[in-house]
Amino acid sequence: MSYKVLGRFIGRILFLEALLMVPALLISLFNSENAAVKGFLITIGIIIAVSVILMILCRKAQDSFRAKEGVVCVGISWLVLSLLGCLPFCISGEIPSYVDALFEMVSGFTTTGASIVTNIEELSKGILYWRSFSHWVGGMGVLVFLLAFVPADGSVHLLRAESPGPEVSKLVPKMKNSSLILYTMYIVLSVLNLIFLLAGKMPLFDAVCTVFGTAGTGGFGVRADSLASYSPYLQTVTAVFMLLFGMNFGCFYLLVLKRVKSFFRDEELRLYIGIIIGSVAIIAVNIYSIYGNIWDTLRHAFFQVSSIITTTGFVTTDFNLWPSLSKAVLLCLMLVGACAGSTGGGFKCVRLLLVLKGIRRSIQKIMHPRKVIAIRNNDTAVDESTMDGVNAYLATYAIILVISFLLVSVDGFSVETNVSSVLSCFNNIGPGLDTTGPTGSFAPYSVFSKIILIIDMLAGRLEIFPILALLPLSTWKKS
Amino acid sequence: MSYKVLGRFIGRILFLEALLMVPALLISLFNSENAAVKGFLITIGIIIAVSVILMILCRKAQDSFRAKEGVVCVGISWLVLSLLGCLPFCISGEIPSYVDALFEMVSGFTTTGASIVTNIEELSKGILYWRSFSHWVGGMGVLVFLLAFVPADGSVHLLRAESPGPEVSKLVPKMKNSSLILYTMYIVLSVLNLIFLLAGKMPLFDAVCTVFGTAGTGGFGVRADSLASYSPYLQTVTAVFMLLFGMNFGCFYLLVLKRVKSFFRDEELRLYIGIIIGSVAIIAVNIYSIYGNIWDTLRHAFFQVSSIITTTGFVTTDFNLWPSLSKAVLLCLMLVGACAGSTGGGFKCVRLLLVLKGIRRSIQKIMHPRKVIAIRNNDTAVDESTMDGVNAYLATYAIILVISFLLVSVDGFSVETNVSSVLSCFNNIGPGLDTTGPTGSFAPYSVFSKIILIIDMLAGRLEIFPILALLPLSTWKKS
Repeated sequence: MSYKVLGRFIGRILFLEALLMVPALLISLFNSENAAVKGFLITIGIIIAVSVILMILCRKAQDSFRAKEGVVCVGISWLVLSLLGCLPFCISGEIPSYVDALFEMVSGFTTTGASIVTNIEELSKGILYWRSFSHWVGGMGVLVFLLAFVPADGSVHLLRAESPGPEVSKLVPKMKNSSLILYTMYIVLSVLNLIFLLAGKMPLFDAVCTVFGTAGTGGFGVRADSLASYSPYLQTVTAVFMLLFGMNFGCFYLLVLKRVKSFFRDEELRLYIGIIIGSVAIIAVNIYSIYGNIWDTLRHAFFQVSSIITTTGFVTTDFNLWPSLSKAVLLCLMLVGACAGSTGGGFKCVRLLLVLKGIRRSIQKIMHPRKVIAIRNNDTAVDESTMDGVNAYLATYAIILVISFLLVSVDGFSVETNVSSVLSCFNNIGPGLDTTGPTGSFAPYSVFSKIILIIDMLAGRLEIFPILALLPLSTWKKS
Repeated sequence: MSYKVLGRFIGRILFLEALLMVPALLISLFNSENAAVKGFLITIGIIIAVSVILMILCRKAQDSFRAKEGVVCVGISWLVLSLLGCLPFCISGEIPSYVDALFEMVSGFTTTGASIVTNIEELSKGILYWRSFSHWVGGMGVLVFLLAFVPADGSVHLLRAESPGPEVSKLVPKMKNSSLILYTMYIVLSVLNLIFLLAGKMPLFDAVCTVFGTAGTGGFGVRADSLASYSPYLQTVTAVFMLLFGMNFGCFYLLVLKRVKSFFRDEELRLYIGIIIGSVAIIAVNIYSIYGNIWDTLRHAFFQVSSIITTTGFVTTDFNLWPSLSKAVLLCLMLVGACAGSTGGGFKCVRLLLVLKGIRRSIQKIMHPRKVIAIRNNDTAVDESTMDGVNAYLATYAIILVISFLLVSVDGFSVETNVSSVLSCFNNIGPGLDTTGPTGSFAPYSVFSKIILIIDMLAGRLEIFPILALLPLSTWKKS
């Protein structure tokens, strides 16, 4: 581990964080929210001080990353960004407990949207803005953003660790250009989303925050009932845009390149759409008697399915009151997650696709032990090391789920609460069921459980290994 | 697929089943249970008729199995044994519904111990005996038994498919001798268990049935409250023997060979013991306030941990009333399961060990992408194909759990009920939580859910692939 490379990079990323906090500060100033202004000013001061010290101490380091530094850098960056980024919540007194503030910040950056806030409409606008904006920043990845402007040798190691999915997909050969293209598409889609919301007469502040939550597939809203009190038009627009942000941005790039056929042939996209249609159908039949009219039923079913599979976590209705089958479908969608290369979390559709193909191969192998069978995805053979990676990922994913479930069970909430909370945090969704359901919050959990869930959220967003890599002592040996 | 090889083998295995049913018939005769006598007589007649027809039709086939026939043979054999073996329950009228009877029989052969019987103490002795005896037969494997007497070419394919664990471990080079040694150890341990129970003044019939349930790690008892109303001595003896039957029989063979050091160094055994001690400690602290005295607390904690990790499913107390943490520990133990090469079910400790080692390697690999790292178990390098197999197994295991959970949710029971029922059936344990908890039964589930759970039990006992292998159409092409 080269500490200087690490220090220099973290110095830079913190400087970026301070810049990103300025709009929130301005909003608080404009609305004369004195406590929040104080919170942002002090925090920006601290962050810039730490950043400058790190950059001076490590000024001689080269911007060159080996695999190890790349992974560790990503893990540490996200940790530090959250540890300092949550200070405005505390200092302003709006979320007095530091662990609660950290939970809220990690939930923001990881685009989880799980909240410990029970009085959301009493928060100041600046704080609400920062909370939602963290979704937008965390969705596409703050390091990806930095790399678009500050190129570095071996930056692919950083991108690989920060980007979701089993394979890092560079859209174009140059890393820097890939980052720029990704962010351009992200901004264009976000602006489109904003226009559609404003057209539906959503207030500007609400619309901006909702776009952040939608684009990052985060789920923090500005109202206690999430999106329930907005018009059906606004809910439907949001549901559609959640789906779009849950798609692989590489697919959008296919459209930009006018390769429409390849777009519609993408196997992951087909699975994603198929699961959505199937889930909406099952839930609609199951909940029809609750709403009693086909349009309300379909709207709520579609919105919730879209919200959960994309790991956003907005709600329009209390699905905790739905029958078991619908809840089971939602729990399964939590496990599936969005597409790789999107802003969504979870296991990812493409991994599920590869796992299913792997199972089919296992059956064939048992019947014909000596046959060599390649697994294909979108007509290209999948590298065996990718298959091993997917299976190893699933194993790690399962073990972390089980251990987390065990640890948060110490608090004594129901099995349903604990299973769904862990699933929800680890897959960066937001609401759980029962105590942590749409009308509840994560506030009742103990500090210990909150820390476990914070680790789950970070591990989920960074796809586990950048966080696990911080654990072995050997990681910290100086090189 | 050679249908003649399959037919000849199934003819033989059915003949064996008819023989195995004779003691139950005699018990019913002795106790003048007329309905049961009729049930057994008719069933034995049917089975022998089918068996003889199959053996005559396929008399020219050679006893030679390729991988494919081995796997299919095991899957089909278990299915046919259950489909016919459950007839006495129906014909006697003691379990009138055929699906219920099949559920009970599959639960018996797969050593699950999940029951749809709500009036267990009203069943006739012959039926109770057959129900419990099926555990003993299914525990070590009925095909293993047959192979001890009727050797066949490629019988290793059969043994591999029927025996639990990631690698088939032949104790001695000759398959036939391995089977004999396994069954000898099994019988010796069972007799020892019986002696200990009789010494504690358990009635002979109860003792024999309890030994069957313990040895097969099944869990069917002869009383409605399972083992709750027996003395603490009998409960403790049972808890200890459950643990023994959950150990790899290969380890016992090490003791027979006086290789005591290798016995105590076995990594799987150490993990197994470690998990048990840890779980008992956590649960004991958690439930102390319920029992209020250290010995009762320890006894119940130890018994339940032993019963669940070995996938037996006997109970001494209603653990459904325990706090969340204890329930969470039990749910996790359901996932872990016993040791490979034992009569227990579940994921198996050695697989968990290999998965954990695989995760450690994944972390190392991310840090040092080009390093070649071998995984070692008991000081020998684990074959990469075994590692791939373990990960593929986990993937299949997880997918089946999720799909089953979704399907049984149609019935509308609580999430806790559905999660625990699927876990319990798929891992061949027995009781679940909530509706299917220690004082409940699986009777309330619909026919559809019962069929799903039947498939889960079979898939769990045969470690999935022999059941999945029956699905593709290509399996059934004539060769």
